Amino acid sequence: MIEKILQQVQDGTLTAAEAKEKLATYENLGFVKIDHHRKKRVGFAEIVFGEGKTSAQILAIVQSLRQRNESVLVTRISQEKAQFIREQYPEMQYHEAARILAWKNEETSVADNKGYIAVVCAGTSDLPVAEEAAVTAETLGCNVKRVYDVGVAGLHRLLDNIETIQGATATVVVAGMEGALPSVVGGLIGNPIFAVPTSVGYGANFNGLSALLTMLNSCASGISVVNIDNGFGAAYNAVLINQLAYKGAESN
Amino acid sequence: MIEKILQQVQDGTLTAAEAKEKLATYENLGFVKIDHHRKKRVGFAEIVFGEGKTSAQILAIVQSLRQRNESVLVTRISQEKAQFIREQYPEMQYHEAARILAWKNEETSVADNKGYIAVVCAGTSDLPVAEEAAVTAETLGCNVKRVYDVGVAGLHRLLDNIETIQGATATVVVAGMEGALPSVVGGLIGNPIFAVPTSVGYGANFNGLSALLTMLNSCASGISVVNIDNGFGAAYNAVLINQLAYKGAESN
Amino acid sequence: MIEKILQQVQDGTLTAAEAKEKLATYENLGFVKIDHHRKKRVGFAEIVFGEGKTSAQILAIVQSLRQRNESVLVTRISQEKAQFIREQYPEMQYHEAARILAWKNEETSVADNKGYIAVVCAGTSDLPVAEEAAVTAETLGCNVKRVYDVGVAGLHRLLDNIETIQGATATVVVAGMEGALPSVVGGLIGNPIFAVPTSVGYGANFNGLSALLTMLNSCASGISVVNIDNGFGAAYNAVLINQLAYKGAESN
Amino acid sequence: MIEKILQQVQDGTLTAAEAKEKLATYENLGFVKIDHHRKKRVGFAEIVFGEGKTSAQILAIVQSLRQRNESVLVTRISQEKAQFIREQYPEMQYHEAARILAWKNEETSVADNKGYIAVVCAGTSDLPVAEEAAVTAETLGCNVKRVYDVGVAGLHRLLDNIETIQGATATVVVAGMEGALPSVVGGLIGNPIFAVPTSVGYGANFNGLSALLTMLNSCASGISVVNIDNGFGAAYNAVLINQLAYKGAESN
Amino acid sequence: MIEKILQQVQDGTLTAAEAKEKLATYENLGFVKIDHHRKKRVGFAEIVFGEGKTSAQILAIVQSLRQRNESVLVTRISQEKAQFIREQYPEMQYHEAARILAWKNEETSVADNKGYIAVVCAGTSDLPVAEEAAVTAETLGCNVKRVYDVGVAGLHRLLDNIETIQGATATVVVAGMEGALPSVVGGLIGNPIFAVPTSVGYGANFNGLSALLTMLNSCASGISVVNIDNGFGAAYNAVLINQLAYKGAESN
Amino acid sequence: MIEKILQQVQDGTLTAAEAKEKLATYENLGFVKIDHHRKKRVGFAEIVFGEGKTSAQILAIVQSLRQRNESVLVTRISQEKAQFIREQYPEMQYHEAARILAWKNEETSVADNKGYIAVVCAGTSDLPVAEEAAVTAETLGCNVKRVYDVGVAGLHRLLDNIETIQGATATVVVAGMEGALPSVVGGLIGNPIFAVPTSVGYGANFNGLSALLTMLNSCASGISVVNIDNGFGAAYNAVLINQLAYKGAESN
Amino acid sequence: MIEKILQQVQDGTLTAAEAKEKLATYENLGFVKIDHHRKKRVGFAEIVFGEGKTSAQILAIVQSLRQRNESVLVTRISQEKAQFIREQYPEMQYHEAARILAWKNEETSVADNKGYIAVVCAGTSDLPVAEEAAVTAETLGCNVKRVYDVGVAGLHRLLDNIETIQGATATVVVAGMEGALPSVVGGLIGNPIFAVPTSVGYGANFNGLSALLTMLNSCASGISVVNIDNGFGAAYNAVLINQLAYKGAESN
Amino acid sequence: MIEKILQQVQDGTLTAAEAKEKLATYENLGFVKIDHHRKKRVGFAEIVFGEGKTSAQILAIVQSLRQRNESVLVTRISQEKAQFIREQYPEMQYHEAARILAWKNEETSVADNKGYIAVVCAGTSDLPVAEEAAVTAETLGCNVKRVYDVGVAGLHRLLDNIETIQGATATVVVAGMEGALPSVVGGLIGNPIFAVPTSVGYGANFNGLSALLTMLNSCASGISVVNIDNGFGAAYNAVLINQLAYKGAESN
Repeated sequence: MIEKILQQVQDGTLTAAEAKEKLATYENLGFVKIDHHRKKRVGFAEIVFGEGKTSAQILAIVQSLRQRNESVLVTRISQEKAQFIREQYPEMQYHEAARILAWKNEETSVADNKGYIAVVCAGTSDLPVAEEAAVTAETLGCNVKRVYDVGVAGLHRLLDNIETIQGATATVVVAGMEGALPSVVGGLIGNPIFAVPTSVGYGANFNGLSALLTMLNSCASGISVVNIDNGFGAAYNAVLINQLAYKGAESN
Repeated sequence: MIEKILQQVQDGTLTAAEAKEKLATYENLGFVKIDHHRKKRVGFAEIVFGEGKTSAQILAIVQSLRQRNESVLVTRISQEKAQFIREQYPEMQYHEAARILAWKNEETSVADNKGYIAVVCAGTSDLPVAEEAAVTAETLGCNVKRVYDVGVAGLHRLLDNIETIQGATATVVVAGMEGALPSVVGGLIGNPIFAVPTSVGYGANFNGLSALLTMLNSCASGISVVNIDNGFGAAYNAVLINQLAYKGAESN
Repeated sequence: MIEKILQQVQDGTLTAAEAKEKLATYENLGFVKIDHHRKKRVGFAEIVFGEGKTSAQILAIVQSLRQRNESVLVTRISQEKAQFIREQYPEMQYHEAARILAWKNEETSVADNKGYIAVVCAGTSDLPVAEEAAVTAETLGCNVKRVYDVGVAGLHRLLDNIETIQGATATVVVAGMEGALPSVVGGLIGNPIFAVPTSVGYGANFNGLSALLTMLNSCASGISVVNIDNGFGAAYNAVLINQLAYKGAESN
Repeated sequence: MIEKILQQVQDGTLTAAEAKEKLATYENLGFVKIDHHRKKRVGFAEIVFGEGKTSAQILAIVQSLRQRNESVLVTRISQEKAQFIREQYPEMQYHEAARILAWKNEETSVADNKGYIAVVCAGTSDLPVAEEAAVTAETLGCNVKRVYDVGVAGLHRLLDNIETIQGATATVVVAGMEGALPSVVGGLIGNPIFAVPTSVGYGANFNGLSALLTMLNSCASGISVVNIDNGFGAAYNAVLINQLAYKGAESN
Repeated sequence: MIEKILQQVQDGTLTAAEAKEKLATYENLGFVKIDHHRKKRVGFAEIVFGEGKTSAQILAIVQSLRQRNESVLVTRISQEKAQFIREQYPEMQYHEAARILAWKNEETSVADNKGYIAVVCAGTSDLPVAEEAAVTAETLGCNVKRVYDVGVAGLHRLLDNIETIQGATATVVVAGMEGALPSVVGGLIGNPIFAVPTSVGYGANFNGLSALLTMLNSCASGISVVNIDNGFGAAYNAVLINQLAYKGAESN
Repeated sequence: MIEKILQQVQDGTLTAAEAKEKLATYENLGFVKIDHHRKKRVGFAEIVFGEGKTSAQILAIVQSLRQRNESVLVTRISQEKAQFIREQYPEMQYHEAARILAWKNEETSVADNKGYIAVVCAGTSDLPVAEEAAVTAETLGCNVKRVYDVGVAGLHRLLDNIETIQGATATVVVAGMEGALPSVVGGLIGNPIFAVPTSVGYGANFNGLSALLTMLNSCASGISVVNIDNGFGAAYNAVLINQLAYKGAESN
Repeated sequence: MIEKILQQVQDGTLTAAEAKEKLATYENLGFVKIDHHRKKRVGFAEIVFGEGKTSAQILAIVQSLRQRNESVLVTRISQEKAQFIREQYPEMQYHEAARILAWKNEETSVADNKGYIAVVCAGTSDLPVAEEAAVTAETLGCNVKRVYDVGVAGLHRLLDNIETIQGATATVVVAGMEGALPSVVGGLIGNPIFAVPTSVGYGANFNGLSALLTMLNSCASGISVVNIDNGFGAAYNAVLINQLAYKGAESN
Repeated sequence: MIEKILQQVQDGTLTAAEAKEKLATYENLGFVKIDHHRKKRVGFAEIVFGEGKTSAQILAIVQSLRQRNESVLVTRISQEKAQFIREQYPEMQYHEAARILAWKNEETSVADNKGYIAVVCAGTSDLPVAEEAAVTAETLGCNVKRVYDVGVAGLHRLLDNIETIQGATATVVVAGMEGALPSVVGGLIGNPIFAVPTSVGYGANFNGLSALLTMLNSCASGISVVNIDNGFGAAYNAVLINQLAYKGAESN
């Protein structure tokens, strides 16, 4: 491809400036392309991990995104920091349980209401992580059905809701303690499952290690795992798949 | 009590020899009593853990027990070692899958066919541990119902057999990989569950650590856990409970 | 069984409505039955794990249970949260050392004062976990004998109390630090032992891991283990067994 | 729905036998449905994990599947065991590097050559796991493009192949040692990545733990993780997604 | 021996009461003897581990010991709690760096100023643990020579003091971080070394695990290890040995 | 060498005093020499690790160094403690992000502005560790080029700065989370890399363990690793190498 | 001291050669002294750790020691390698259970038959480690009393032998599985205990980690710990103490 | 730079082909440059890690390198595989202790005999790793001085050789067991140390984890660490530094 561009320059059918732009694009193709892709698909150029950042640092990033009129999604942000940002951008919404601060530019939003993902969680203590997943998906423009408090110790609650889960394009399953829920759900449904271990538990739970190992060792097919408490990561994956299913891989 | 005995000696109503025997019993009461108790209940004075013992060492113990005409239960014994013992004691039976060598003195056996324990396992690879539990219980004189290959990834197989498990006095649940089965069973039945993690699995299973942690963190009530692959230990507990249920605590 | 029901409908000996109810029961048998069973036996439909729940969440659950006039048992609840609940339900009792808030409907209570369980602990620092076990058992209607501060480093204290432990239907043994107490008790008594490692210790204790491993590796028969600090779980198991021993397995 | 069926029986528009079949289906809907679903989608009712099974056990399963004329996929099977099976079923193909034995019933195969998944691996030592993924996907009827030996220590090899990876519907990334490859690939492409840590390495690799932790902690979005060496699991997920993308979620 | 006692009763040379006392002593010999032994040797019947005990609990124990006019040694006690005790017992001394509260009954004290133990530590951060060891030994009546801040990174400081260490009866070596000091000291001296890993460090130190493993793996002979930060335990051992060396084993 | 000195004394060509000095030097050569060496090279006799030291302890060390008019470098010191020291030594500078308090005696400083080291970090959360490295190197008299926020998830940012890194004499690479950056940098540059894992992350990061293992297992050559968060250690190594490169090994 | 020596040379009262020898001794005092000390005390200049050394390497060391007519102690040596050595030195004795090859020069032996150490072990599987301890001590010239197979699960066996243990100067306690024996023994005796965890066990034993942690966390005073399976190390310590007790610290 | 090239094409001062070559170089500069750099410096384009590769795979790589007449360095290769390669390339030399197969093209070799690195190891069991380091450095054209068997338990052996180590440009320190040697060496010398933990040890060594943690936590400055048993990696780093010291950073 380089050869062709250079030949055009030598032939005079392309100016040096035009050629440079083409080559620059080519060179950085791998890096730039993905950004455009991701933005086109999810409507967000950048997602901000709020934990460990100061209010001032977060504000600076938000300002930069808002100046370009882009949607904003900040995860793991405390109410205090969110309040600080909202003083300047009161249109941004803070989702307390999910610890997410977000604003969606509806014009550039890519949602088209096709399909949905299921967010399933085992106990009420897992709710913050489940909500991080659910709000992330909704902010990224994807429909969400919540199926909460359906842990394996009371199997009938799960079975009462199994059709909702079976109808999803992809499923996020959030569980702490022994983390057995994804295995059980995996035996009952056919869509891809993203399992999220939580740090909920005590003693031999070792801050989520127990649930993490359980999920990695699951006998059921169709399950993959993200980091402990990483509701965002699982939702991001599920949204990607919902878009693939409803827009097709050509939209890649 | 000592005072009373000594008074009887001083009074001449008890000889020194008689008093000595009484006191010896009193002194060692805690230690001796349990042995008699255990033997009376399970019909075995001693159970032999075969792993790490030579054929000669095992033979010596077996000889000692057989000379006193007592029942014999040797766990974790290879076919080679078992064959060596059986050359002298051909009436002993080797349970290959369970890796158990046993002989029961039917006269002193305490079994009376009341109640049963359920031995449940997740996959075919967990079978050796499940059989160690089942054969242990049977050799100790307890009825056993086996419910095998009912892992959580195919929940219907478990549900098809749930009434058998519900009808047991106590249940042994054996599972490797993610070890989620006890949690699910625990949500479906009311009798005490002894969970046995197995070392079956690979990678992040870490030789049974994953299943062990899962079981210790179970959300379901009524579950306690024994060491990885310790089918014997779980069965021993279950047998104790079946005897308590059918003979009452007075038999303690 | 389905066939029979349907035949009765076809025969006109059963209306569709009646048949539906029967089938619904059949279908959900596994899940519903256990709840009834458990309630019948322990007098509690649901036990609330208070840790990680807000005062408002706990209040909501308590209200729901009290409206159905059911007994209530909330574990791992701080004095502050308990006080909040007691403002509305002053008849509920807070057990400070055990961190338990409870109210027992004496009419539906199943206790009949037969038998008892022993709750044994090694040191005074293990007391909160031991009390969680003891109060749980008492609230579930079971007699309890406490044998505290009998760690293995002073064996005579244990031996002075061994007959109390031997007389129990089942025993809960609570120990932190090196966690050796269950092994020693296991060599002295014949009833089933539920071992509870505690997070008491420092350095190479690793928050209870040391005691947990010790108990899982115990050489003594008749011992099973629950999660670190899980006094509730051990007591629940012991109560089940006391009921089996005094009511028989038919009550299952 | 039960009510409607029963009404039909009472009305005489449905026999008891017909009703029973309908109800059975309904009852087991969750469990059966998935099997049909999965078979319809991937053309396989059951996939056999060969590790820890004897030749005789595997043969029995294969016979059962072949009698129903179904496709067969056996993973983690040694050449010796595969040879044993192939003596009876010479039409089955053994993929040595992948350690897979497979036969595909082309008539029921669901492949339609749309889209492809990329299987990327870091080093030649990771090849067996990468091949397990690639052959699994191919046997399940999905096109595969292999991009091997593109570890991060020689980034240009990866960048030379990045367009192939960007064009896939989903990507499997296999890496041992430090396991950094998924993070780097995740920064360059927009499709979902299933990361497979391998046990390749030594010393502080701890049999794949190092690579596993790296992947779980990845900063890049769109990555989820399966168990160490679990090439099959990652490929299964990727195939599900390719089918969603080309057949749509309605095929779920 | 029982026989002889009983014979004496029967012979009338011993009353029942006298016999009872003898038998009681015999029976409990193992347990009682040690307490007397220890007290005779170290002058303390009981040592109190203050951590995790309330001020009130500690006060109760101190009162009990003081009423019997016995020496008192409380370790791991905060300044606040110590102040609380000292309000009632102002003669007790609080050693701030060592976190020890002590009072020695000089009349029953067993110290005779023969020999000494060396307490060696690597860095100033290890000082609290070293002081716990030193003050423990001094309170138990043993001379102590402190050799502080002689970590292996500046070997000349250690070598400048090596003769002091060589002259001790036994040596306590306290070190955090990499914990290499006992190995180096072990290569330079001939008396028994009790190594104390401390939790001083960060990162891959893992709260003292690094130093603990280093000490357990030491190539040098004559080294044994106590728990992380357990200065008391090491000093207790060293004091025992100093007494053996200067009073002989007959004092055992 | 001893022989020669003694011979000179015997010959009268050396006085006893002169010989003593020579021998003393010889004896302590290993220990003394290094101090002089290090000071000559880096201009610092001693570097103070502030963590775990009180303000008073730090002040005492600073006073001692300032009295000898030596440069001072205190790492891991909080703003409060630094302020305390600066009240007496206002000329000392506190580097807040780096948590370093320093003063350089420009007369004895060894810097000569040849060469530079690169300090590279992955994310903004890693900045404190990166700054500890950068300020350490600068205080030791070495030029530093900072290349921050170039994590592997956005590879183009790294590649945009790769020439700066390639031009360094040695490189410090700081990364938390999955810690993949050193591997990628190691594949792109030829100078020695000192990798610093940070404790930045959550869940399966285990306080930096994940990044530490990643770096130790790196496939790229030319990488060595220091403790988690040890920016100082990495910088010290890099400075040593820059001096070797520009002053030659003779300066050793 | 240097000054004095040099002055003597200058004065002519000491030749250069004499002075050199004195200074050399002084210089290396720390290092050489210990060797002489140790040899004088235990009668062995060097002890050979056979594991990981070839037969040829061991032979070379043995030859060197025998040429100087010194006693020889080789630990962890297989029967094959021992046989190889014994072909040249048939007077050496191989202790099979202990895996020790030894020869004692009776002339230089320091044994004088005063006192003894007790070697206690829990189960027959721990015997090789116990024998390593016992044979080490005997070869070093110390009397040994063996108390084997007295695990805590059968406390009466231990109590039957407690007086033997109480009479020892120091005690080695060897235990695998849960490793509780040292805690129990520590509560019953007054002499110093060296605890040896063994790798005997399975599952959650983790190759001796369980027993190691148990021993480090022991509540009993007077216990210190050596590496897993390190019978030699414990015995070496016990022998040092027996010598201190019977020869006094002056022999140090 | 792109602009300038394109302008030259447009100006006709550069043909399209010439421009393409320039741009290709520019584009891939980062990746290609390092290879050239490394080759220029160490005389090796590629180093082969033999472990986990078949003889055929290694042979293929060797053939490729020899056809380009390049030097060859294969690490971790068994004698059998080496023999297989040497049948075709008998001029290659196998270093048995180091497990390295190598051939050096003396014409392109970059060695110029300036400076040397020291390879220090603690015990004879660490020799294979030390030799891997030493032979790697020699094959890369760097002088090596070996200082073996100088573990910290016998400090005088180390001190006798300290000047050799002090004279090196960089030092590789290899140690298993407790891994304390780098800390001690680090306190005695001024050149950069690359510490290599080995897997030599048993019990709580955990296959080198103990030594690894020790080295990462070293208090001494100037130490960085490579993976367990990675002698090659440490030597590679040391050689880089020797070249920087003697050729200067300009050669980078």
